[in-house]
Amino acid sequence: MAEVAPDPSLLIIGGGGETVRRPLPDSLHVNGGDGTYSYTRNSYFQDDYYILVENQSMQCIHSKISFPFSTFNPRLLKSVPNWQRLAANVVKERIKGAITMKLDVEKLSSTSNTIYIADLGCAVGPNTFDAMQDVVQFIQQKYTLQCPQSNTTLQFLVLFNDQPSNDFNTLFTSLPREMPYYAAGVPGSFHRRLFPESSIHFVHCSYALHWLSKVPEELLDKNCGAWNKGRIHYTNAPNEVVQAYASQFAKDMEEFLCARAMEIVTGGMMTIIMPGLPNEMPYSQLAASLMYDFMASTFMDMANEGLISEDEVDSFNLPIYTPSPAEMASVVEKNGHFSIEMLELTNPASLVDGLVDIKAWVIHVRAAMEGMFIKHFSTDIIDEMFDRLTKKLFMFTEQVESGYKDRTQLLVVLIRK
Amino acid sequence: MAEVAPDPSLLIIGGGGETVRRPLPDSLHVNGGDGTYSYTRNSYFQDDYYILVENQSMQCIHSKISFPFSTFNPRLLKSVPNWQRLAANVVKERIKGAITMKLDVEKLSSTSNTIYIADLGCAVGPNTFDAMQDVVQFIQQKYTLQCPQSNTTLQFLVLFNDQPSNDFNTLFTSLPREMPYYAAGVPGSFHRRLFPESSIHFVHCSYALHWLSKVPEELLDKNCGAWNKGRIHYTNAPNEVVQAYASQFAKDMEEFLCARAMEIVTGGMMTIIMPGLPNEMPYSQLAASLMYDFMASTFMDMANEGLISEDEVDSFNLPIYTPSPAEMASVVEKNGHFSIEMLELTNPASLVDGLVDIKAWVIHVRAAMEGMFIKHFSTDIIDEMFDRLTKKLFMFTEQVESGYKDRTQLLVVLIRK
Repeated sequence: MAEVAPDPSLLIIGGGGETVRRPLPDSLHVNGGDGTYSYTRNSYFQDDYYILVENQSMQCIHSKISFPFSTFNPRLLKSVPNWQRLAANVVKERIKGAITMKLDVEKLSSTSNTIYIADLGCAVGPNTFDAMQDVVQFIQQKYTLQCPQSNTTLQFLVLFNDQPSNDFNTLFTSLPREMPYYAAGVPGSFHRRLFPESSIHFVHCSYALHWLSKVPEELLDKNCGAWNKGRIHYTNAPNEVVQAYASQFAKDMEEFLCARAMEIVTGGMMTIIMPGLPNEMPYSQLAASLMYDFMASTFMDMANEGLISEDEVDSFNLPIYTPSPAEMASVVEKNGHFSIEMLELTNPASLVDGLVDIKAWVIHVRAAMEGMFIKHFSTDIIDEMFDRLTKKLFMFTEQVESGYKDRTQLLVVLIRK
Repeated sequence: MAEVAPDPSLLIIGGGGETVRRPLPDSLHVNGGDGTYSYTRNSYFQDDYYILVENQSMQCIHSKISFPFSTFNPRLLKSVPNWQRLAANVVKERIKGAITMKLDVEKLSSTSNTIYIADLGCAVGPNTFDAMQDVVQFIQQKYTLQCPQSNTTLQFLVLFNDQPSNDFNTLFTSLPREMPYYAAGVPGSFHRRLFPESSIHFVHCSYALHWLSKVPEELLDKNCGAWNKGRIHYTNAPNEVVQAYASQFAKDMEEFLCARAMEIVTGGMMTIIMPGLPNEMPYSQLAASLMYDFMASTFMDMANEGLISEDEVDSFNLPIYTPSPAEMASVVEKNGHFSIEMLELTNPASLVDGLVDIKAWVIHVRAAMEGMFIKHFSTDIIDEMFDRLTKKLFMFTEQVESGYKDRTQLLVVLIRK
């Protein structure tokens, strides 16, 4: 295994053992519980909108991303004819293919018959359960393929990770009654170490890495070109703002990859699914961009009416970044601990026709982002903001509909060197 | 390793892998959150009452049991002079001794440098963190003793287990900022399998095994000699009732030991701390017995006044059992997968003088038991019941003070054969 230098700020060596220093919980988590705007209730929507056709019992490996899809691509909120192949299955099939072709399960299981799998940024379910069930099934199938004569029964421990502020109570009480693995929850930021060295065989990370570990500090400096006045994101922002975001993403990814390089055994696999931006395309062409612009202008309207202060808007920025494939390849290569087995943009939206369901889109965005807004703004104005946002998006339906819709989902498959 | 037959009701073999069937969450958990009657706030009390003298930084290995102590032995709620040795340290020292003398850490770490530790029935902290920190430290010290020349740095993953209904959110957000281990939460009943086969090196279980997995069914059968009319426990009950409890405890322990035998590696250790009854002593001599009798009579008073129905009282029973050392030895020997390295009664209370603090005792009992009462009785009557109970105990202070106080804590150290 290649050497990975541990980040000295994360480890305190003393008394012969490692001390794990934990970051303070932050607010980067989806809505817990099961209320109107909870993630649990609002990440189920694919059940209402999509009909699985290939196989009634087939479970979508990345159904968790149904909500983040809605942030980045509102088209996915629409119903689809049942003869259409569910877009998500494309990714599921790709991951199945990657495990079948690239994961040496025989080798991984040579020292222990337990396979350790982690889902990083798992949120509160139920979709992480489906994804994990699929991964377990694919690994099991690959093992049977590699070792048809083996009498060994593989066992699996799935480690569900998210921020300490994630609603693990909901996650735990909604665990499937029957599942092909043992389950544990691991609280902590995935930008730092979460597991012992060389203890993990497979990592899945779906629609989580677009969350930056923090807002780039330059955005708040009034004397800096990156001061993000009147905006809440890098959409249609000056180049300094975009660069501040890009630089934070690169730093976060380096920390993420270094931590994982320590934890994943040689030959272990990591699959990453996240929003992606086609190379050379301006971010403002994505539908999500429109959403953030309209959020900012809604907040500014409210500031002009004295409901909030302008300073509050200027000092609020969404810690979200959408890299291009080239950018992602660059950070992985610079890190050097993983080989890129697959890196591609897929597009669930191109399979979907019809009009965007704006109301549903806003509800799903709210389920994921409300926590951040509440932390910064007064709770009282949140309803008002989302009401106004919905109305504004309705007024610009045409613009929403014309938002770029092709290939905006990045799929990365890495193998630990 | 000796063969352990898995309980077929817990595993579904299919598709080449194990399916873990989970029990439904139950209400056997302490109060979560941080309100007036929360376990978090009411398990801290030793900080106010005890002063550690031997070493300012010494942490009590079983400080979690501060609350259950208060149920079983109200004397421990009283302050002690600071020249007295903290009773809890007796157990801590015993466990340190057991690890030093009996745990072959060199052998355990021969295949991997990560030691997996589980705390079963961990509740919500903060005391489980202290206990785990101590266990990690003792194992680390033993390793240094065994392998003074080793360059290997041991790593630790601590698996905090409790019922799925436990407040893991509170547990996770109160994890120490710095700790000598990686942390995970594992939801599930410890009467069933929780971890993969041969994956755990050390199990700690403090003041959890006295909770039965369920109330013995016979107690609710009006046509059976074990019908527990007018009582809520086996205190001062007919022999049939006591036998029904004893039999449920034996069944639970067998399930517990079989599950652990599958999970703990050969040579791995398990430490159990729980309330214990001196051999040949009637249960009614314990202070806890008085508490349960008074609870029952308080409920009956309220039934007579029409606040609750008599049926409600008759159908409620506390699923708590206190075994004698002989009884515990018998179930472990019958199971056959563990050698008994230590099995003794210790007594923190004999070191404590002064009067019982009845009010504090009731508050701590409430922190652990309220969930069960609320599940069975109307929420409205809980305040009333605890108010009456406190008054009643004050009226019988003399009787409370005369409750048997010596050696009522069972310490068991087992090694997986």
